[in-house]
Amino acid sequence: MSLPVIDLNADLGEGFGRWQLTDDEALLSVVTSANVACGFHAADPSTMRRVCALAAERGVRIGAQVSYRDLAGFGRRAMDVPPEELADEIAYQIGALEVFARAAGAEVAYVKPHGALYNRTVHDEEQAGAVVEGIRLTGAQVPVLGLPGSLLHAAARRAGLPVVAEAFADRAYTATGTLVPRREPGSVVTDPDAVTERALRFARDGEVTALTGELVAVRARSLCLHGDTPGAADLARRVRAFLEEAGVKVEAFA
Amino acid sequence: MSLPVIDLNADLGEGFGRWQLTDDEALLSVVTSANVACGFHAADPSTMRRVCALAAERGVRIGAQVSYRDLAGFGRRAMDVPPEELADEIAYQIGALEVFARAAGAEVAYVKPHGALYNRTVHDEEQAGAVVEGIRLTGAQVPVLGLPGSLLHAAARRAGLPVVAEAFADRAYTATGTLVPRREPGSVVTDPDAVTERALRFARDGEVTALTGELVAVRARSLCLHGDTPGAADLARRVRAFLEEAGVKVEAFA
Amino acid sequence: MSLPVIDLNADLGEGFGRWQLTDDEALLSVVTSANVACGFHAADPSTMRRVCALAAERGVRIGAQVSYRDLAGFGRRAMDVPPEELADEIAYQIGALEVFARAAGAEVAYVKPHGALYNRTVHDEEQAGAVVEGIRLTGAQVPVLGLPGSLLHAAARRAGLPVVAEAFADRAYTATGTLVPRREPGSVVTDPDAVTERALRFARDGEVTALTGELVAVRARSLCLHGDTPGAADLARRVRAFLEEAGVKVEAFA
Amino acid sequence: MSLPVIDLNADLGEGFGRWQLTDDEALLSVVTSANVACGFHAADPSTMRRVCALAAERGVRIGAQVSYRDLAGFGRRAMDVPPEELADEIAYQIGALEVFARAAGAEVAYVKPHGALYNRTVHDEEQAGAVVEGIRLTGAQVPVLGLPGSLLHAAARRAGLPVVAEAFADRAYTATGTLVPRREPGSVVTDPDAVTERALRFARDGEVTALTGELVAVRARSLCLHGDTPGAADLARRVRAFLEEAGVKVEAFA
Repeated sequence: MSLPVIDLNADLGEGFGRWQLTDDEALLSVVTSANVACGFHAADPSTMRRVCALAAERGVRIGAQVSYRDLAGFGRRAMDVPPEELADEIAYQIGALEVFARAAGAEVAYVKPHGALYNRTVHDEEQAGAVVEGIRLTGAQVPVLGLPGSLLHAAARRAGLPVVAEAFADRAYTATGTLVPRREPGSVVTDPDAVTERALRFARDGEVTALTGELVAVRARSLCLHGDTPGAADLARRVRAFLEEAGVKVEAFA
Repeated sequence: MSLPVIDLNADLGEGFGRWQLTDDEALLSVVTSANVACGFHAADPSTMRRVCALAAERGVRIGAQVSYRDLAGFGRRAMDVPPEELADEIAYQIGALEVFARAAGAEVAYVKPHGALYNRTVHDEEQAGAVVEGIRLTGAQVPVLGLPGSLLHAAARRAGLPVVAEAFADRAYTATGTLVPRREPGSVVTDPDAVTERALRFARDGEVTALTGELVAVRARSLCLHGDTPGAADLARRVRAFLEEAGVKVEAFA
Repeated sequence: MSLPVIDLNADLGEGFGRWQLTDDEALLSVVTSANVACGFHAADPSTMRRVCALAAERGVRIGAQVSYRDLAGFGRRAMDVPPEELADEIAYQIGALEVFARAAGAEVAYVKPHGALYNRTVHDEEQAGAVVEGIRLTGAQVPVLGLPGSLLHAAARRAGLPVVAEAFADRAYTATGTLVPRREPGSVVTDPDAVTERALRFARDGEVTALTGELVAVRARSLCLHGDTPGAADLARRVRAFLEEAGVKVEAFA
Repeated sequence: MSLPVIDLNADLGEGFGRWQLTDDEALLSVVTSANVACGFHAADPSTMRRVCALAAERGVRIGAQVSYRDLAGFGRRAMDVPPEELADEIAYQIGALEVFARAAGAEVAYVKPHGALYNRTVHDEEQAGAVVEGIRLTGAQVPVLGLPGSLLHAAARRAGLPVVAEAFADRAYTATGTLVPRREPGSVVTDPDAVTERALRFARDGEVTALTGELVAVRARSLCLHGDTPGAADLARRVRAFLEEAGVKVEAFA
């Protein structure tokens, strides 16, 4: 019987100019996939180049973390961008990142929307389609990392793009396998032991206990680790160690 | 004896969102090289996609018109950007444009700095080097379109990149072959007949009469036509017709 | 019996840097109220200063045309800005405009949201409240120009701010007195004769014929004239002349 | 004989959206003057409102820290902004801050340029004049905080504005009383004991020992404390305590 296998992804390069947010260096020694910001919600070109260089050096896969054009709101404010415009904005971001991935001897190996765009493309068919159209414009045949069951994944499949499902060890789930909205009590799991334990159950058993107590199956090939909170890199390191000790292989998706 | 041959280039895609500046469609029926703005001084992603599609359709070569990050100043304000940052900003812009060139079945075939960056890299070695380093980061072995004798061309040559010299039919020249600064009287040639006549002399004879009367040799493989003034497209059309009637072949550089 | 009285308002200063959109000078010789952009969807500081100076010179009232922070989308893309942030952004814009109004010997005499913010605050209570809170933060006791029956007007009234109702002579109305959405056929009235005729009926009779034929009462103290289309200034001039010939007094609201 | 008196100023509100830089709360318990960023190099409207509210609450004076429009470069890249445009940009920033100062029951009590604009207006007469013209546009009769002997101070005096001289306890001085450029060795004083000692000598004796050993007179009514380095708030607290123990009165300028 084969080992359970899981990818660990985190958002990186989320500074801008003088401002830093994530400890990119520390996180790049833990994760296997780096969601690199592309300048629309965060990341200036020099940050993108540095993160790509470090990621390539450590064998971490580079993905384009595409976003609404919203530096002031860190890409967290949903925007009614017309789909054609949105597709072009997505393609622009991927193209910009490709240069730095290539300069590091690597490539943009997947795409993952950020923040409000991530949330919106779970259920907004038009914007989900626009993100996929943006990827299609670049000509890249890369997987779309996202929530299983999202309209984004459905749109990617229709366009012939591979999809990779991810789960969140620090977020509560409903009985139907969706995330409990952040505004509801109990939506975020903060206890480190609980987070590591949940990570293992996702990776090894493909399941999670819903906030309301039910056992729910969640098939995920990747776990998203948050990098923008104090202690984030430490918790990420701990999750990885716990997974490996339990016999889970930590490895990027193909 | 072979025909004299000249390229005609113009700045295109210089709108932003709701704002338009150049009549891209009209100019693309005249020029052989399109300097496409890349989002830093002008151009949103949708404009870039449209201009690239139109250019490819008409066989017009696509170049990256790279700039300082300065939408408010249209890239016309010199900025002391540290060279490493500048190189990364140049690479970012080229990468973004590559996506839309590729989507149109074309490629980014050359690079030309815009506005203040163009002027500064004539004589600022550090920034000239940074622009060339930005091109090098992208891996593209493309020519740099610019002023003959500029430090930008010198830096490109040192880096093993081809250079293409351009001349300005609507700008006065000094006796040493440099442009008369815009703030000086007589620096801009506005009479359409004079412009077309000067275009022909550049293309056929490789020379221009300086503002101070001397005959000056200016070897140029391309003529820059301005597209952002009223009647610009008409004048461009007239220049092209005048050149062709005089036996000059209008053709993009290799 | 007193003359019917109407204000004419138009969006002004909607360029940015190198880009122009509206013919500010021509429109300022027609309208009585200038909705001056404040830098978030359009307008750089120099444009704001110039428009304020011209408006003051001609006795045109200055209003703050506040918007989402969205230059790329010209403020036309709805954004889920948290209400506290939105209020602060509104206050920031009004404060910036106050300086230029003051420098011209005038003041910011009213506030009108732009584009997507205008449309959203018709029916979104939270954002309507945020706009009013932004005005309140500035300490200005100025009227809010908007759609009669909008939640924006309701919020302004609750906060003790005056409201001024406007109508659109070039937009079709439903039988209940709301605007027919732009995406529906017949939503925009393009025939100049129809526009001037409708302007007069709003101003003199307080009524409009709905797209579906019903006569609808619309009480408006101001008519919004669009300035960003070719021929806009001519049409505005014609509307004003037509109103005055019919005995309507064209005058800013108090 | 009267006590020596000194003001302590620091840059505050230098985050943007999701990003934080300075520990505004800690610094506001130490300084007497807060240089509040106005959105051009840092600070979103909500940050400006919060910092103004906190400053007013603690009796800290609010100043406008005006800058080039350069979020990506944190206002540290010199820009050739035409003087009229620069004046308008300065006025815009001051106006925006005024709203938040007023909302906090305070006012914008002084102006201090940031970063590259600070350095450039020391010796660039045109830009120095533009900053002063920007202040004049707002109508505020407020002091300009800056380097003694700077062209900025000269321009302010010519315009009838008060000037306030500041010194830097953590920067090395030349024998003529100017700052040793940052790129030179020994330009920054990092030892906390040396910084506090130098602060006292500025405040009590009006002098500093130049990097080359000479005793130099420097008359300063304010000391600038840096807030954007780790431990900055602690060092600031220590400087203040050391000054007060030595009998220096720490108080804002009038």
